[in-house]
Amino acid sequence: MKILLIGFGAMNQRVARLAEEKKHEIVGIIVRNSEKSYPYPTFEHIADATEADVAIDFSNPELLLSLLDEDFNLPLVIATTGEKETIISKLKELSNNVPVFFSANMSYGVHALTKILEAAVPLLQDFDIELTEAHHNKKVDAPSGTLVKLYDVIESLRDYSTPVYDRHEITEKRSQDEIGIHSVRGGTIVGQHDVLFAGTDETIEITHRAQSKDIFANGAIGAAEKLIQNKNGFYTFDNL
Amino acid sequence: MKILLIGFGAMNQRVARLAEEKKHEIVGIIVRNSEKSYPYPTFEHIADATEADVAIDFSNPELLLSLLDEDFNLPLVIATTGEKETIISKLKELSNNVPVFFSANMSYGVHALTKILEAAVPLLQDFDIELTEAHHNKKVDAPSGTLVKLYDVIESLRDYSTPVYDRHEITEKRSQDEIGIHSVRGGTIVGQHDVLFAGTDETIEITHRAQSKDIFANGAIGAAEKLIQNKNGFYTFDNL
Amino acid sequence: MKILLIGFGAMNQRVARLAEEKKHEIVGIIVRNSEKSYPYPTFEHIADATEADVAIDFSNPELLLSLLDEDFNLPLVIATTGEKETIISKLKELSNNVPVFFSANMSYGVHALTKILEAAVPLLQDFDIELTEAHHNKKVDAPSGTLVKLYDVIESLRDYSTPVYDRHEITEKRSQDEIGIHSVRGGTIVGQHDVLFAGTDETIEITHRAQSKDIFANGAIGAAEKLIQNKNGFYTFDNL
Amino acid sequence: MKILLIGFGAMNQRVARLAEEKKHEIVGIIVRNSEKSYPYPTFEHIADATEADVAIDFSNPELLLSLLDEDFNLPLVIATTGEKETIISKLKELSNNVPVFFSANMSYGVHALTKILEAAVPLLQDFDIELTEAHHNKKVDAPSGTLVKLYDVIESLRDYSTPVYDRHEITEKRSQDEIGIHSVRGGTIVGQHDVLFAGTDETIEITHRAQSKDIFANGAIGAAEKLIQNKNGFYTFDNL
Repeated sequence: MKILLIGFGAMNQRVARLAEEKKHEIVGIIVRNSEKSYPYPTFEHIADATEADVAIDFSNPELLLSLLDEDFNLPLVIATTGEKETIISKLKELSNNVPVFFSANMSYGVHALTKILEAAVPLLQDFDIELTEAHHNKKVDAPSGTLVKLYDVIESLRDYSTPVYDRHEITEKRSQDEIGIHSVRGGTIVGQHDVLFAGTDETIEITHRAQSKDIFANGAIGAAEKLIQNKNGFYTFDNL
Repeated sequence: MKILLIGFGAMNQRVARLAEEKKHEIVGIIVRNSEKSYPYPTFEHIADATEADVAIDFSNPELLLSLLDEDFNLPLVIATTGEKETIISKLKELSNNVPVFFSANMSYGVHALTKILEAAVPLLQDFDIELTEAHHNKKVDAPSGTLVKLYDVIESLRDYSTPVYDRHEITEKRSQDEIGIHSVRGGTIVGQHDVLFAGTDETIEITHRAQSKDIFANGAIGAAEKLIQNKNGFYTFDNL
Repeated sequence: MKILLIGFGAMNQRVARLAEEKKHEIVGIIVRNSEKSYPYPTFEHIADATEADVAIDFSNPELLLSLLDEDFNLPLVIATTGEKETIISKLKELSNNVPVFFSANMSYGVHALTKILEAAVPLLQDFDIELTEAHHNKKVDAPSGTLVKLYDVIESLRDYSTPVYDRHEITEKRSQDEIGIHSVRGGTIVGQHDVLFAGTDETIEITHRAQSKDIFANGAIGAAEKLIQNKNGFYTFDNL
Repeated sequence: MKILLIGFGAMNQRVARLAEEKKHEIVGIIVRNSEKSYPYPTFEHIADATEADVAIDFSNPELLLSLLDEDFNLPLVIATTGEKETIISKLKELSNNVPVFFSANMSYGVHALTKILEAAVPLLQDFDIELTEAHHNKKVDAPSGTLVKLYDVIESLRDYSTPVYDRHEITEKRSQDEIGIHSVRGGTIVGQHDVLFAGTDETIEITHRAQSKDIFANGAIGAAEKLIQNKNGFYTFDNL
């Protein structure tokens, strides 16, 4: 697979390294600041990368949106976050002429976790749910975006749900609609998400552990490998 | 709910205790050896328990099969193991006239675990699967019946699978079709089952923990509560 | 072993059941309200239980303290909580004439957990620590008393520590002295305590799981079995 | 800190990267094949690296042992495996003139785990022990060297212990001296080791998780940082 990279920040540098380990080829990159020196040829327009089979984007709305207005004919794997509605609407237009894949979280495992939750929550309506995520000690926000996504899945499948972040001064028993949310921080933990279903005398626990940020780069490469075998259309992890 | 118990071994004694805690009433029991003294009236035939709303069975094929040949008109929750085909075939006949529930494992959580697996396995085809169960140090068989059931679910959803029970003298790397099976034994652990999906830089783990054998008794009582609100038919956890 | 029970609430009822399963004998009980009917002879004074080898107490300061002022000569296992200083001081006096065991938490495993922590904390000074406990959905206080005890052990072995109960509106990275405290509530979980040490690219986690409140009753019986083989003195889990 | 690297395989390449991230300097490397091109100056003798503050070795007995016979005066951090006795005996000689650190496993966390076990095993003599390790699907040997080390610690602290690798055709209950050993293989798991103590109604579990092989490189760098502040002598993780 010959790959054009849109953006060359930390994530697409990982994509380059991992793609080459898998014997794919990076034919070039599109960057804003083309005066710096890069290990790959730089292009200004998607259409300039005539050899490429697919483009993988980990950039930003400014760079991406202007590129999407151009004329080109290359399958796209898009991971830019921010301005989600605008980007999706443009991508859907483009998908009439080219296969396009979009996901704001390129980890296939996190996607799978949300699908597994969609199966589990309706089965376990009488169980109490508690959510725990763990990340490294440099993370400034809490809870994680992925935990919020898991919460949203649960909320959409239950009649009532109320997030509870702190119990240490509460002296009442848990109400049924509570969903406890716990943010563990320590060391260099890449990311762990845990959904606990606690019932009468039994529990079911579903845990996702990320070991490296490579999961996002590999998720994009894997999506690209499948995308180029598909016909024109708008794809996500749900239908690829 | 007025309950007739078929059999009065360890499990139905739990059913009696837990049902009474939930304000249900045990109207009588059917046992082989009616010469011993019991805390409830004993009956010989299901039809004798005229007051009963439902029968809950944790007995054995000998006792159960002879009872099923009689004339009666009582909803049945059946948990006898052994002679599964014969029992199911008789129950299906009976289900034209009465609602009947059958499960060889009355734990609702274990049932839910198998349904969650049915969702997870197809999503995670590229992940390696390993199964671990843990039980108390008196258990004589390994792996547990529930683990075998989980393995069967996985096998039916994958192209290839080979159980591997021991790696300590193997000096080859894992093949893709392997499913490692690990039986942990210790203390008084009631039962824990764990399915590990291990992929590139991420894992998903699904764990069921039983805290007490009450889950089987409560599973039967819960099934009975729902069953008596249903029309005639053959029910399992899949359609109740 | 012939046992006198002081108090006959939920915990000493468990002691009675479990002691008999182990072929010990309950020779009698001391209770306030001796008008109710009990399955064992009732006594008013410790000295009346002339046959007893040991007394096991799960009562309350009112009952216990008045009994301790009497004349008697029986080894004591004391688990009453409340008025800790007064009770310990009286027990230390008594311990000149009789072996006495005291613990406010009769679970041997929880005791072992605190001793393991005492070994682990000094070894892992550069690791971040986070504490998580999980209990059933009826528990009204948080965090659990056992978690507070674990926190105290850690605090006494680190230069700085600050408990943090809620991170969801914080937008700063974790400081080194933080100890995150998380109280999970759900179902009928008996009790789980987890100490996470998170360092650079590695974590160590120590987890205690209780499966039944029997651990407190068994802890008392086990202490009694050892105590009666010891000479006069004041014992805890540290020196028994 | 100015570092001389002995050997420049996968591990010392990590050391170089991580040391530079921590603002240390690699002043040169000693390699066998000095005809290849390297990103650092190459030396033949330890004494040639006149600027160095410390040497970090991840090489092999052939290279290392010949170097140790030379004259030099540089603190050493030695991680070569193989010919352990010969190496240690030479290092002890050298330690009269220079501080020397040796460990066959440079992960500080694994060292800490063994020390924690030394505290836990005597406390939990009545508990059943089971050991589980998990590694990536390319690992050819089982169980891992670290698990064997953990087993040795346990064996030295218990009266009886027998490793059990496979229970699936056993139809007997667990004997007290058994230590179940489970090798999980899957995905890219870097390394996880778990010691389960299972008692009556309670368990204690101690788990070490490695997230990256960087722990070995960082362990060596951390040892070097401390070593150069110490006087002459032979050091391990136990006394550094």
